[in-house]
Amino acid sequence: MSTPNLDLLEIAADAGFRRVVLDIEHNGYDADRREALVVAARGLGLAVCAKIEAPEPVWVQRAVDLGVDAVILPHVGRLAEAEAALAACKFPPLGTRSYAAGRSARFKAPDDDYFARQNREVLCLPMIETAEAFDDAEALLASPLVDGIFVGPFDLALTRGRTTYGFVDGDRADIARLAALAQAAGKPWWMPTWRPEEQAFVRDHGAAVRVVAAEHQLLSLGLKQVLDTLVY
Amino acid sequence: MSTPNLDLLEIAADAGFRRVVLDIEHNGYDADRREALVVAARGLGLAVCAKIEAPEPVWVQRAVDLGVDAVILPHVGRLAEAEAALAACKFPPLGTRSYAAGRSARFKAPDDDYFARQNREVLCLPMIETAEAFDDAEALLASPLVDGIFVGPFDLALTRGRTTYGFVDGDRADIARLAALAQAAGKPWWMPTWRPEEQAFVRDHGAAVRVVAAEHQLLSLGLKQVLDTLVY
Amino acid sequence: MSTPNLDLLEIAADAGFRRVVLDIEHNGYDADRREALVVAARGLGLAVCAKIEAPEPVWVQRAVDLGVDAVILPHVGRLAEAEAALAACKFPPLGTRSYAAGRSARFKAPDDDYFARQNREVLCLPMIETAEAFDDAEALLASPLVDGIFVGPFDLALTRGRTTYGFVDGDRADIARLAALAQAAGKPWWMPTWRPEEQAFVRDHGAAVRVVAAEHQLLSLGLKQVLDTLVY
Amino acid sequence: MSTPNLDLLEIAADAGFRRVVLDIEHNGYDADRREALVVAARGLGLAVCAKIEAPEPVWVQRAVDLGVDAVILPHVGRLAEAEAALAACKFPPLGTRSYAAGRSARFKAPDDDYFARQNREVLCLPMIETAEAFDDAEALLASPLVDGIFVGPFDLALTRGRTTYGFVDGDRADIARLAALAQAAGKPWWMPTWRPEEQAFVRDHGAAVRVVAAEHQLLSLGLKQVLDTLVY
Amino acid sequence: MSTPNLDLLEIAADAGFRRVVLDIEHNGYDADRREALVVAARGLGLAVCAKIEAPEPVWVQRAVDLGVDAVILPHVGRLAEAEAALAACKFPPLGTRSYAAGRSARFKAPDDDYFARQNREVLCLPMIETAEAFDDAEALLASPLVDGIFVGPFDLALTRGRTTYGFVDGDRADIARLAALAQAAGKPWWMPTWRPEEQAFVRDHGAAVRVVAAEHQLLSLGLKQVLDTLVY
Amino acid sequence: MSTPNLDLLEIAADAGFRRVVLDIEHNGYDADRREALVVAARGLGLAVCAKIEAPEPVWVQRAVDLGVDAVILPHVGRLAEAEAALAACKFPPLGTRSYAAGRSARFKAPDDDYFARQNREVLCLPMIETAEAFDDAEALLASPLVDGIFVGPFDLALTRGRTTYGFVDGDRADIARLAALAQAAGKPWWMPTWRPEEQAFVRDHGAAVRVVAAEHQLLSLGLKQVLDTLVY
Repeated sequence: MSTPNLDLLEIAADAGFRRVVLDIEHNGYDADRREALVVAARGLGLAVCAKIEAPEPVWVQRAVDLGVDAVILPHVGRLAEAEAALAACKFPPLGTRSYAAGRSARFKAPDDDYFARQNREVLCLPMIETAEAFDDAEALLASPLVDGIFVGPFDLALTRGRTTYGFVDGDRADIARLAALAQAAGKPWWMPTWRPEEQAFVRDHGAAVRVVAAEHQLLSLGLKQVLDTLVY
Repeated sequence: MSTPNLDLLEIAADAGFRRVVLDIEHNGYDADRREALVVAARGLGLAVCAKIEAPEPVWVQRAVDLGVDAVILPHVGRLAEAEAALAACKFPPLGTRSYAAGRSARFKAPDDDYFARQNREVLCLPMIETAEAFDDAEALLASPLVDGIFVGPFDLALTRGRTTYGFVDGDRADIARLAALAQAAGKPWWMPTWRPEEQAFVRDHGAAVRVVAAEHQLLSLGLKQVLDTLVY
Repeated sequence: MSTPNLDLLEIAADAGFRRVVLDIEHNGYDADRREALVVAARGLGLAVCAKIEAPEPVWVQRAVDLGVDAVILPHVGRLAEAEAALAACKFPPLGTRSYAAGRSARFKAPDDDYFARQNREVLCLPMIETAEAFDDAEALLASPLVDGIFVGPFDLALTRGRTTYGFVDGDRADIARLAALAQAAGKPWWMPTWRPEEQAFVRDHGAAVRVVAAEHQLLSLGLKQVLDTLVY
Repeated sequence: MSTPNLDLLEIAADAGFRRVVLDIEHNGYDADRREALVVAARGLGLAVCAKIEAPEPVWVQRAVDLGVDAVILPHVGRLAEAEAALAACKFPPLGTRSYAAGRSARFKAPDDDYFARQNREVLCLPMIETAEAFDDAEALLASPLVDGIFVGPFDLALTRGRTTYGFVDGDRADIARLAALAQAAGKPWWMPTWRPEEQAFVRDHGAAVRVVAAEHQLLSLGLKQVLDTLVY
Repeated sequence: MSTPNLDLLEIAADAGFRRVVLDIEHNGYDADRREALVVAARGLGLAVCAKIEAPEPVWVQRAVDLGVDAVILPHVGRLAEAEAALAACKFPPLGTRSYAAGRSARFKAPDDDYFARQNREVLCLPMIETAEAFDDAEALLASPLVDGIFVGPFDLALTRGRTTYGFVDGDRADIARLAALAQAAGKPWWMPTWRPEEQAFVRDHGAAVRVVAAEHQLLSLGLKQVLDTLVY
Repeated sequence: MSTPNLDLLEIAADAGFRRVVLDIEHNGYDADRREALVVAARGLGLAVCAKIEAPEPVWVQRAVDLGVDAVILPHVGRLAEAEAALAACKFPPLGTRSYAAGRSARFKAPDDDYFARQNREVLCLPMIETAEAFDDAEALLASPLVDGIFVGPFDLALTRGRTTYGFVDGDRADIARLAALAQAAGKPWWMPTWRPEEQAFVRDHGAAVRVVAAEHQLLSLGLKQVLDTLVY
């Protein structure tokens, strides 16, 4: 979702969707409305995945404090540079996440299993969308802080030296390599896929989750259909 | 609730509350946050009762369009004056509610039973808190537009000529009369009750719902307890 | 538009739309965001038509103060009851609109033609969506305060005794009568039309403006198309 | 103030202003920001006067619940039509104001003097800006619900048949008559005055309060001064 | 405070509180509402202490631009890593704070003493809640950029290898060490203390300020008390 | 602009201004209102220049995603430290900007020239307001990532060891040196100038753009003029 649209949330839940990705990175809605989206989505039975602003601890901490189910870190580079941000997803001793006596703890004192349970349940998914992360993907996947990867095909194409993303041979080879590394590491990989051929390809390469609809795309598709059927 | 506080909503749902009353009349939060409260509350399994701004069709329409479970109309006077507002709670032919292709219809075209179901399920509860409504309570309860009454003891005391509300004999007599009328009409009556003696009294007089906590009261009670136990 | 979505505004302007209808009646976004929509839409070259909360002077005044191009008054009844609201669209001596030294005056002192120009350019369009307005449509169209009518087919069907709106014979007869009255009065009529057969019908009956797309519909259409083409 | 601008509030308080008029009628900022303005203004020692949306009980009630010091009712007509709105400013038995256990009561149970004190301290000021109110000004001033009047010279000129407000003879005669009536009734009168000649005139006619600055005017004056002194 | 609740602010001021800590770190309310809180709190005579998002210059700058009385920096590590953030609290030549011609300067040109006065009056308080900061506490307290420390007992327990914070021996020893270091440096130390035994302990160890109430705790305490006394 | 004031935007556009600088650094308005400003300003034909929060990639990315015409980076130090932030202004292969399928791409798939066109048209302007940047100005201006510089005279004076900014000899010498370097590099330089002597000086030294009005200054100037002409 690219706007804090509660209507779309309800429409999507009714249509059978099970997960929603908040694209905070490129949109960044207000704190009030971000909180409203998370609370409402959980109430509607949708898992909430936050694509955060940047791969830094401050943004990870804000997402986990809201109680999201997964943190997607954009523009991650090599493991060594990303480690501080990745660590902010997990409580000590595994990481450095700070305890907040709020929404993510259901406004209650933590029980004995709270810290371990959160570390297990809140997924940490670095995006692989820079040439640096692509080169270091094996190390990233091996890190105990990382629960899986989220492939960002557009920026990956640009930073890997292609002029744009067109699901061409080079794109497919890169995606296939990441899929193989993820499977070797025994961890899931996710990817956004707008076109049928992308959807078939990533399914065949074992993607755990496919993100298949974007808000602007829905509006544009809907508008196109209205104009196509308009009687002048 | 007197502020659009999603935290309180979650705390209350976890504590076992089943209904929340939005006091829009005296607070009137922004449209965005009102919508967030309703969507979140329903997701959390809480019924949402909106005490609206005034007994006029425009405010009723806005509440039902949000998809609330009950509309509480403050400062209702005699039935004849209130009828336009009460009618706005129910679709034709019973009333005059306008159809909105939005949240209250789950963003879908209405099925065959939609209008009848909404008329049945969304409660219309005029408040009895003016001398005029008190005098006309029997007629109000007899109206097919009315599903029950909500007693407003504070304003009722003032408009009935008492200097304040103190749960004194006059207050109790008024409440008992309304309880008897409601039971005679076979319709429920609700009332806010902050004190144990009020709670026992209205339970014994057959109140269907007791509103037992107000946001400011919770903060003040909590603050008092902190100061009482503070080690100086 | 049913949400204050600036993205949709830009997408629609790029797609060649020339007018946007803000459905404040059934949604009622915050003042800040309503103002942002109006300023942005005008900047994008879109005429802004505000379907306001209710047929009362207070809501008309707020819309004209924002500087909209047309005010659409929902749930108008007979002319005699609606006259106060209609009058609030026009400055004296024609009506009772209050002068605001703000957005609608471009933050400047009014020039000699200002009041006449505003009365001419800002359209006052009562909706015909109740049986009372339908019966009194000739008088409404004859009023010098009225610049045209906006047909509300759904509520019209309900208040005229049909169980829902289905573009059936009764619906078509009502629309045709209103079209004939508008043409006789030499004033435009507008109508929302989602289906090709409606679009052809209202075009053939001389509608000046057809509203052809609703935000929820676009999202639902778009989502349906995504799911239809999804490769599982 | 025409926008919810906390900066202007602090600048004005520092410059020695003692009162601020919120022009909710023509602007209508969000509930959150309106509340912020009132709380901040009171903290800064500024009296808060709310020019409300319309002369109806619902808008009066919202203003007094916020804890403002004066309610200014626009577009009042004859006393008989305005009486319901004026009454909403005062608690029973004088009026019909509803008790709210919130901001206006400092979040506490009311003490013995609370209702009388509020009736005394929160001013009710109908605007005289329609021909009807002008004709009925003596009766309005005689009402025990009314604490004084606020002259609206612009709309008054329009509704009294002049083409605009220019502080011409007709304008001055109307203002002088209202001043005389207010003094005869022993109640204050207020007026906005942007020009020196207006300021001298209303001072000489005994105005209790002169509103001397408007937000847009300040920005325009400031901008003009910048451009006048700009070195090209 | 964990939500931007102006009601709680007024209730707390009336109850005699003198300071309010905005927990921006774990909550992060919108810019509008943050500004409203600061302006209102100062008006109410409450000192405003901002626990900011992260120990980085950008967050410090935003807090000091708002005109807060103290900046509390969470998750500080060793002095060398924190120095850039600490320096952003103080104008040159002591630090690197940027001059803003806005709220923190009362919207006026700075007088001769302005920069020195701000450096003196706006407190810079790093939190000691990581093992690194705990180890480097003496150096942090010796820095001329630092005006005192704020102990974060929960995260301190986790990062020092304890499974949770329980005010056990290890917790007490850590707190006592920090208290001794602060006293040796002649600088104040602050700490949040919810329980009587904590309150007594930190008082006996010379804490300058004890934070004794949290918003969620107040709501939960209040709710518990309502349920405890409820008559079923 | 220091507040998200759409009124000021329209007043300025009408007064003939062609550019607006959003001072996000010292004010930081909400995401909703920032977006509204950008969309409205572009609609009004004003170029939008965003002075962002800090010289870090995350803030640059948010500004370019909004579709601004220029990014002004405050508190830049030496080129080596600023390079990551500067690179975030430009798409690969020149920089590291991430592609967002949203506002900055007009919600459409990118055409062949999109990446090159954005790199050409969206200006990257580091501020020279620290001693480090002043020392490294030649290198900064030589970077292919940099399109020009924005001089920050106030902080520059402080960090260069002067007690304040007074447009004294030292200030003028620093500005003249930067002007000469910019001209040597063939790139424009911009500067805020409130006083006539500053305006003449920077014009004579070839500044490309002079920022000549600030919102608080306008309000204060306007208020002063009102008080100066007030008839007591």
